[in-house]
Amino acid sequence: MTKTVTLSQAQEVIAAALHRADEIDQPVNVAVVDAGGNLVAHVRQDDAWIGSIDISIDKAWTARAFDISTGDLAEYAQPDTQFFGIQNTNRGRVTVFAGGIPLRDDGHVIGAIGVSGGSGEQDQTIAQAGLEALSAHR
Amino acid sequence: MTKTVTLSQAQEVIAAALHRADEIDQPVNVAVVDAGGNLVAHVRQDDAWIGSIDISIDKAWTARAFDISTGDLAEYAQPDTQFFGIQNTNRGRVTVFAGGIPLRDDGHVIGAIGVSGGSGEQDQTIAQAGLEALSAHR
Amino acid sequence: MTKTVTLSQAQEVIAAALHRADEIDQPVNVAVVDAGGNLVAHVRQDDAWIGSIDISIDKAWTARAFDISTGDLAEYAQPDTQFFGIQNTNRGRVTVFAGGIPLRDDGHVIGAIGVSGGSGEQDQTIAQAGLEALSAHR
Amino acid sequence: MTKTVTLSQAQEVIAAALHRADEIDQPVNVAVVDAGGNLVAHVRQDDAWIGSIDISIDKAWTARAFDISTGDLAEYAQPDTQFFGIQNTNRGRVTVFAGGIPLRDDGHVIGAIGVSGGSGEQDQTIAQAGLEALSAHR
Repeated sequence: MTKTVTLSQAQEVIAAALHRADEIDQPVNVAVVDAGGNLVAHVRQDDAWIGSIDISIDKAWTARAFDISTGDLAEYAQPDTQFFGIQNTNRGRVTVFAGGIPLRDDGHVIGAIGVSGGSGEQDQTIAQAGLEALSAHR
Repeated sequence: MTKTVTLSQAQEVIAAALHRADEIDQPVNVAVVDAGGNLVAHVRQDDAWIGSIDISIDKAWTARAFDISTGDLAEYAQPDTQFFGIQNTNRGRVTVFAGGIPLRDDGHVIGAIGVSGGSGEQDQTIAQAGLEALSAHR
Repeated sequence: MTKTVTLSQAQEVIAAALHRADEIDQPVNVAVVDAGGNLVAHVRQDDAWIGSIDISIDKAWTARAFDISTGDLAEYAQPDTQFFGIQNTNRGRVTVFAGGIPLRDDGHVIGAIGVSGGSGEQDQTIAQAGLEALSAHR
Repeated sequence: MTKTVTLSQAQEVIAAALHRADEIDQPVNVAVVDAGGNLVAHVRQDDAWIGSIDISIDKAWTARAFDISTGDLAEYAQPDTQFFGIQNTNRGRVTVFAGGIPLRDDGHVIGAIGVSGGSGEQDQTIAQAGLEALSAHR
């Protein structure tokens, strides 16, 4: 038995992320994947980068694929660290900068959120807001 | 000036499509692309096929890429017809079965909707419901 | 909550499939994916085609992606039928000939098996043997 | 004559690797390729990362493709070293961090093992255990 995020949960997560994006006035793409790494929902705000569509989806996938935030993975993917080169695997889907975070339920990863469009810090803050919306309901 | 669908409009279109999908009890994926063919929003209902994620997005892309419904394009893509082989172009993004429809405003294509998850007829009906939500506001 | 196939179950399924392949003296590739469509296990028998590695994995993925046996999907993917062109979607992963079958538990799809290496009929028979191993334990 | 790993040998290698993975309590993906670099067998343990499916297969491929352990190749793939950029070749299949090791017989490479799921050190230890199972039989 595996728990996985529902569309309804994904929509709550995305709504909270968009709310935060508006607060800091940074248009972004937000994506949510399920426990299998498959896309559940995606939105691109008006004026957000089209290059960030893929990045938001792939950040979410990466966070679920390795059960780690993409910002943390970044540290291990630098030259002369143990996972340098991981960013070239999985046909280019692995994204190694901040903005992707696993969604957990009782410690189990049930999906992930990926945000792209602002600075690493902005994307991370927005993803975090999405994450908290899910936690608030438990 | 190019008119293009906004996120707000895409969300109305998707909400109407999901409403119709619920009415006919057929879980689906729904995607909306803008005038540039780039994804604006996507949702996958619980229990909808994971193989339909890409198809919904690519149906929407196809409908905008050629300003034609994918059901109509299907007729031209059969063996011994004039565009047979078009389904192999554009790195496989061209989708030639029903469920993708251009979104228009005063005759100009401003984006497209793509639906995947049911039969061709069901997908088409659900996409049509999304289309009508947009028209109802004009 | 989603049920998904375990490695232990996948290994039983594969062992039963290989047993059947030996009985009919047809070396094959066998793959099992989980509920998320992600590979759980794969084996290629000695002398089985290397071109069938991908096909076995993609048949399993296809059977899960659309919750249908790939032999049945074949009927809908022919010219002038409703899903003609589906074989060009999902970046070429959709495989539309016999040998992929969903694995079910109480009616829910928990993964899929894909077999490639023999004729369509042989692949189907071998996949069916894998399927039955899982059912026998419930 | 080319010696190449058999399915039976691959299964021994994988069993030994999984045994070691269990000992150190680190779920992983393990893959074995033959002398042609083509996949012979793959397993993903329950709770092992889905992002490691491709990495385990590609580590094995890389170790055979260049007859070198991927951990050693890592040294040559860093910025300002002679093979920097090799990780971008071969359509992204080249994996340049520890966990892939060639399988040898009388000094000839007959295939390779790839492990992914833990730290570089863990993956290397588990791959080494697989390698030793093969040597023990000669």
